[in-house]
Amino acid sequence: MKVYIDYNATTPLNEAVKTAMIDDFAIYGNASSMHASGRLARARLEEARSNVAALVGAESREIIFTSGGSESNNTVFQTMRRLAERGAVEEQPSVRNEIITTAIEHPCVLNSASFLQELGFTVTFLPVDKYGKIKIDALKAALNDKTLLVSVMAANNEIGTIQDIKEIAVLAKSAGAFVHTDAVQAVGKIPVDVKEWGVDYLSMSAHKIYGPKGVGALFIRGRGGRRAVPLFPLIHGGHQEDGLRAGTYNNPGVFGFGKAAEIAKQRIAEYGKTISPLRDHLREGLVKRIPNSTVNGHPADVIPNTLNVSFPGAEGESILLALDLAGIEASTGSACASGSLDPSHVIMAIGAEPELAHGSIRFSLGWGITREAVDYIIETLPPIIERLRSMSTLA
Amino acid sequence: MKVYIDYNATTPLNEAVKTAMIDDFAIYGNASSMHASGRLARARLEEARSNVAALVGAESREIIFTSGGSESNNTVFQTMRRLAERGAVEEQPSVRNEIITTAIEHPCVLNSASFLQELGFTVTFLPVDKYGKIKIDALKAALNDKTLLVSVMAANNEIGTIQDIKEIAVLAKSAGAFVHTDAVQAVGKIPVDVKEWGVDYLSMSAHKIYGPKGVGALFIRGRGGRRAVPLFPLIHGGHQEDGLRAGTYNNPGVFGFGKAAEIAKQRIAEYGKTISPLRDHLREGLVKRIPNSTVNGHPADVIPNTLNVSFPGAEGESILLALDLAGIEASTGSACASGSLDPSHVIMAIGAEPELAHGSIRFSLGWGITREAVDYIIETLPPIIERLRSMSTLA
Repeated sequence: MKVYIDYNATTPLNEAVKTAMIDDFAIYGNASSMHASGRLARARLEEARSNVAALVGAESREIIFTSGGSESNNTVFQTMRRLAERGAVEEQPSVRNEIITTAIEHPCVLNSASFLQELGFTVTFLPVDKYGKIKIDALKAALNDKTLLVSVMAANNEIGTIQDIKEIAVLAKSAGAFVHTDAVQAVGKIPVDVKEWGVDYLSMSAHKIYGPKGVGALFIRGRGGRRAVPLFPLIHGGHQEDGLRAGTYNNPGVFGFGKAAEIAKQRIAEYGKTISPLRDHLREGLVKRIPNSTVNGHPADVIPNTLNVSFPGAEGESILLALDLAGIEASTGSACASGSLDPSHVIMAIGAEPELAHGSIRFSLGWGITREAVDYIIETLPPIIERLRSMSTLA
Repeated sequence: MKVYIDYNATTPLNEAVKTAMIDDFAIYGNASSMHASGRLARARLEEARSNVAALVGAESREIIFTSGGSESNNTVFQTMRRLAERGAVEEQPSVRNEIITTAIEHPCVLNSASFLQELGFTVTFLPVDKYGKIKIDALKAALNDKTLLVSVMAANNEIGTIQDIKEIAVLAKSAGAFVHTDAVQAVGKIPVDVKEWGVDYLSMSAHKIYGPKGVGALFIRGRGGRRAVPLFPLIHGGHQEDGLRAGTYNNPGVFGFGKAAEIAKQRIAEYGKTISPLRDHLREGLVKRIPNSTVNGHPADVIPNTLNVSFPGAEGESILLALDLAGIEASTGSACASGSLDPSHVIMAIGAEPELAHGSIRFSLGWGITREAVDYIIETLPPIIERLRSMSTLA
């Protein structure tokens, strides 16, 4: 049996999205061209923009397309750099140059923040509790009149914990800071509404919601048809996206993203109802059969598809290898952090011992995962852990 | 009859590329994942990298994938920014902070250069002669021991003029500068060899060679398995591309780019032999039938597919509109510059009057253009120009 259960790394392309993209391959005009082929490409682009906007409760004009979640996040962080630089150039009396983020962000936010730190910004990486929730008191203590940006992920990619973005945004706003959320793992899994959350910037990725790789979007809050918050291009060049993101439009990709967003919106309630019970069944099956297994993440405020479990005494990569041989494809954490031998920064941040962090496995479910597949994992994993633990005892 | 003759804006997807991409849609693993699906995605990515490298005479490890030509160009320019900043931080006695480029670059290079100028760099925009060739004497005069980068496009997108990159690189190197070329419009149309040209950085785009939109590459010169020149990420984040470009790999897109590169390499000689005579036939037909038409660009050093003609007395956008109604899709210049009402900066740079720049049309040919299509344009355009000119006389 083959079970792909690594949907937080990437999802298979939805069949309707695939069909839409193949159809769009035939419309080869450059969406910036004046002629009929260009105008047709443009119309499809705007249709996609409207679908993506609707998924997060935004207006079309508040959405720009990017090459993915990483680019969206980077665009926000370099905008903060530009703002601080321009402040410095204009010799404003009070230049805001402090950034608050969390210890459990995706590497692209962590590394963007570290880069700004290197350039002289003060960056606070907020601690989280044992469930992965940020400590609101720490946020309150860090906020001040120099805070330029608060960037907190909506849902964690490794353990699935959902943050209270609405509360965080209120606090950040009261200090006069901009608010960004990396919602790559939340969008399509739980209802996301930029207005309800009150954020200024929100990052999305198509390939996490059964859309194509290489396409993302950034929400930038507007007001009365204008941008309410600043944005500077990361990629300079042509007039695309109102001068905010240069480069020929990735037309079939964007169109596929729009289709994926449309489907995700229709299925959002069904998603939780279908995926959550399967995830809970997997959790209970594993915890019951494998002694000393520890579930990481929040018991209630968690996206429906994510299960992260530590198996002390067994090493994560060895578990993955054994699972892979049995046809089960899971992960030790973020695919974007692979290539690194360090223990997961997320599992460390929730206060686990390095041994637990090294032995944690992420199962991320999605459309297509069946009860049979889950049962297969519940049957397959216990003897693997037992074998690895006994080897480790012998050593 | 419908004639798309705007291949410099973008090309239709080659059928074999399309098939390869559709096939790759089924391999949905994240190329950074450890499991079998991830490893398969990774293998295909590396196959594509090898094909793209081969098209420009590079080694696989000298190629990184990006979201397109604009991102590739921006990555080089922000690397120069980082170098100058680091130099300043380390208080080197001689910090290089001068950049030399040309007046006829693509907007993404022009705007990247202007951005650095805003930040304090000295930027020289080299003039060109009436054929669009940069003035080598001006380059020699501008080069000095503060020159950090020389960036000259290999072939111009609007008029097709090819620069002597090899000669330019020798001069730049002798001054100790880095050399970049935006080869987006040259690759696949003329033989490109990074070693023969002697460049440090070279930008490419997939959708200009019958590959997908949203995918590009950057060549970074290596030596003995290491990078010989510096590069800093534009997009910070995961470990992808050796830490030089974060973000989940756009797998089907990259695989399609690889296929397009493979085909382009096989057909490079055939391309010139097939496309050049059609372009020449179009040029002669138009010049013969339309009085006072002026061909822009170099008579010999020009990519095989590009023809740019000025029709004084007729306005460019009106010509395009009339052509579009007749089913002919051409351009007034760069699709990336559309949205702007300014006359083409390229046609202005070759010394034309604004009136000529406003009335210039770019025909860019490609695979699929037939002799019949060209004859249809030769029949259709003259009465359009005549009508527009007579209206303009009446006004």
